[in-house]
Amino acid sequence: MTLTHAELAATDRAHIIHPYLPGTAEERVIMTGGSGCRLTDAEGRSYLDATGGLWLAQVGHGREEIARVAFEQMKQLEYFTSFWEFSNDRAIELAARLASLAPEGLNHVYFTSGGSEGNEAAIKMARYYHHRRGESSRTWILARDKAYHGIGYGGGSATGFPVYHEGFAPMMPHVSHLTPPWPYRTELYGGEDPTDFLIRELEARIAEIGPGNIAAMIGEPIMGVGGMLVPPADYWPRVRDVLDRHGILLIFDEVVTAYGRVGEWFAAQHFGVVPDIITTAKGITSGYTPLGALLVADHVAEALLLDHGFPMGYTYNGHPVAAAVALANLDIIEREGLLARAVGLGAHLHAELEAQLGELPIVGEIRSVGMMLAVELVTDRESRTPLPLDPARMPHDVIRRETGVIVRDSAHSLVLSPPLIMTEAEAKEAAVALRSVLERTGPDGTIAG
Amino acid sequence: MTLTHAELAATDRAHIIHPYLPGTAEERVIMTGGSGCRLTDAEGRSYLDATGGLWLAQVGHGREEIARVAFEQMKQLEYFTSFWEFSNDRAIELAARLASLAPEGLNHVYFTSGGSEGNEAAIKMARYYHHRRGESSRTWILARDKAYHGIGYGGGSATGFPVYHEGFAPMMPHVSHLTPPWPYRTELYGGEDPTDFLIRELEARIAEIGPGNIAAMIGEPIMGVGGMLVPPADYWPRVRDVLDRHGILLIFDEVVTAYGRVGEWFAAQHFGVVPDIITTAKGITSGYTPLGALLVADHVAEALLLDHGFPMGYTYNGHPVAAAVALANLDIIEREGLLARAVGLGAHLHAELEAQLGELPIVGEIRSVGMMLAVELVTDRESRTPLPLDPARMPHDVIRRETGVIVRDSAHSLVLSPPLIMTEAEAKEAAVALRSVLERTGPDGTIAG
Repeated sequence: MTLTHAELAATDRAHIIHPYLPGTAEERVIMTGGSGCRLTDAEGRSYLDATGGLWLAQVGHGREEIARVAFEQMKQLEYFTSFWEFSNDRAIELAARLASLAPEGLNHVYFTSGGSEGNEAAIKMARYYHHRRGESSRTWILARDKAYHGIGYGGGSATGFPVYHEGFAPMMPHVSHLTPPWPYRTELYGGEDPTDFLIRELEARIAEIGPGNIAAMIGEPIMGVGGMLVPPADYWPRVRDVLDRHGILLIFDEVVTAYGRVGEWFAAQHFGVVPDIITTAKGITSGYTPLGALLVADHVAEALLLDHGFPMGYTYNGHPVAAAVALANLDIIEREGLLARAVGLGAHLHAELEAQLGELPIVGEIRSVGMMLAVELVTDRESRTPLPLDPARMPHDVIRRETGVIVRDSAHSLVLSPPLIMTEAEAKEAAVALRSVLERTGPDGTIAG
Repeated sequence: MTLTHAELAATDRAHIIHPYLPGTAEERVIMTGGSGCRLTDAEGRSYLDATGGLWLAQVGHGREEIARVAFEQMKQLEYFTSFWEFSNDRAIELAARLASLAPEGLNHVYFTSGGSEGNEAAIKMARYYHHRRGESSRTWILARDKAYHGIGYGGGSATGFPVYHEGFAPMMPHVSHLTPPWPYRTELYGGEDPTDFLIRELEARIAEIGPGNIAAMIGEPIMGVGGMLVPPADYWPRVRDVLDRHGILLIFDEVVTAYGRVGEWFAAQHFGVVPDIITTAKGITSGYTPLGALLVADHVAEALLLDHGFPMGYTYNGHPVAAAVALANLDIIEREGLLARAVGLGAHLHAELEAQLGELPIVGEIRSVGMMLAVELVTDRESRTPLPLDPARMPHDVIRRETGVIVRDSAHSLVLSPPLIMTEAEAKEAAVALRSVLERTGPDGTIAG
């Protein structure tokens, strides 16, 4: 059955509840094909995918090699449970592979179907670890404002935006939010060195709650939905030190940052810290199938495996097709050298953005690590006031409509996280597209023309 | 790379945290292939899958037709986001198809990656619905003891087993658990008609909390993990009446019961009630890829689509490969008449169980709806005391080791939920396998031989 765009759009409006889309919105962009960094919609229009789907398409779209692996595995064994003593060969191979890539000491893998499930599991693991060790009072979770940890009630409670709590409360209790590391926003730190300020705040908060009541701190090493916020280099090592002194676990939410996005397998390696639990998803399969995996430190796994084991499991835990797809995806990342490419191409894309946008008065800062990039928009560079945005005519929507380049808005920043296979010509195309709209954008956020 | 069973098992023990498996457990059953109702492990042993994976393999294992659809879709468009105005043709087709199968008035679809994610979303939807309508005080969720609603912090709080809360708390607040409908356990109702008792309890609980503080009641139409507990026929219609009088939404968690398992597309149709939200997953793809879908009533969707829309989304929302696989799976269910087959074969399997087990003193009750069946184990039929079970030598483990038939233990019941394509010979094989172990099982739970 081949339907026209109009038919598909009408059916969509009649039947689908899209995240973050009001019922009054008529517009639909209906993708029907993808190859490399390009997408095609039901009207035959071509797009440049500079967001990598939702920050996950590391190896790009439509790779037949992965499709063939999925086909073969689905014929062979599409699914059986991995609860209890049941397992399958593909999940075992993937677990061993992940342990070999992970930071030292994170040798245990717990599978999920995605990042939100992963953060529910990570919070449960942290509390359970202390519970099994006789410290059942350790239930508090430290998080940060502007954090995004998915939308389960656990991770969603750790998420630090009011819109993710309003109307959904009461959320999970015992979460405390700290100030995010966002060096561009010097006003957050009252002129103090950001890390000094944040470490002092962390110590004070721990003292206030009581270290014996705190299970873990959870954080994205680079905050994504917050606007690709890159912390100072000394932030995570100093946080790790403080937590260690108080017996508090560190959970890295690497749903966005893992599997090459920042030029290493894990951002933990970029920042030189070893968390106790790493939540991953997205890039593990480049989105070809849903999958998530938690990497768990030996001392945590040891506690989880006591007694009757860890009493939670998702249906698709250890899904053999997802595992086979992940293995094929990791093969491509290795074979095509995409970790190094994320560093080189990321620097190139950063330079292109700087060349095109560097002089625009509404561009406050361009920042990046590897292939995570952000362009923070302000009314002017002196005040650094966030650029007012009209929901009906956001810069990223105008860029997509006018140029076919897809970028995303994250908290007053335009963010880019393209496939790691992007060409230099495509990098330039993205930067030029941003300029074509941002150069017509006034300090009040209105876009001329 | 082909590893031996011993190599795979060693790697598994070194690297995988399995749900509900202690570190001391040495045994591993490593599946490497599946076809129809049969599975093969890394030692070359064959199994009869009488659990349908985790109650989801409606169309059976290893169907090349589905694998081919996944292959084609993965080449064409493996993934793009369905957030905001973005969509894809396969998700749209699936949404329309689900709306056509759903009970009257549930015309809106919200996609997830599985059941746990679905129940997080359902609880959020229910609270948000009231919030948007100006009744922000409606936050309480009514659930039942022995309920299983997944392991996110929201659904997990509604889950009614202590093991899913211990060491994970504090859970999400504002959940209240009622008595489950379990007619065999007459002692729960003090001799009263079970439905009369349960409705009286429900009314009293609503009065206690205050109807203006209650968002929704969530329930599995037939409780799965609780042991395939089939409520009296008048239970759900009378619950629906009470909830309607108090403006409380009804959420059906049909993760297990939907897509043919009970002989209808949805158990709501079996019980003749129309919920406001239905959570589904599992059978929607028969497990070939992770996927979940919420079916949402028009009046609920209308509230969710106000203002800025429904502010939550899972990365894999509307995944095109998962949607294509679901469409192929639904095609098979229709083409092979698996709804009718679930009724006919379910009755046959029930009769086989009755013939093999009906006279055994430790078999208290055999119950079923369609292809959900349970054999409740007791010390004796008079006292109905639950059979003591030794975790190191559970009947279902012995059945699997001795006969290769895989069934599951759920709260002192052996439960079966085979693929809907099971043959009559396989049904008999399963029943005979149960007998071979249960006839040697004493009233103290020890298994002779």
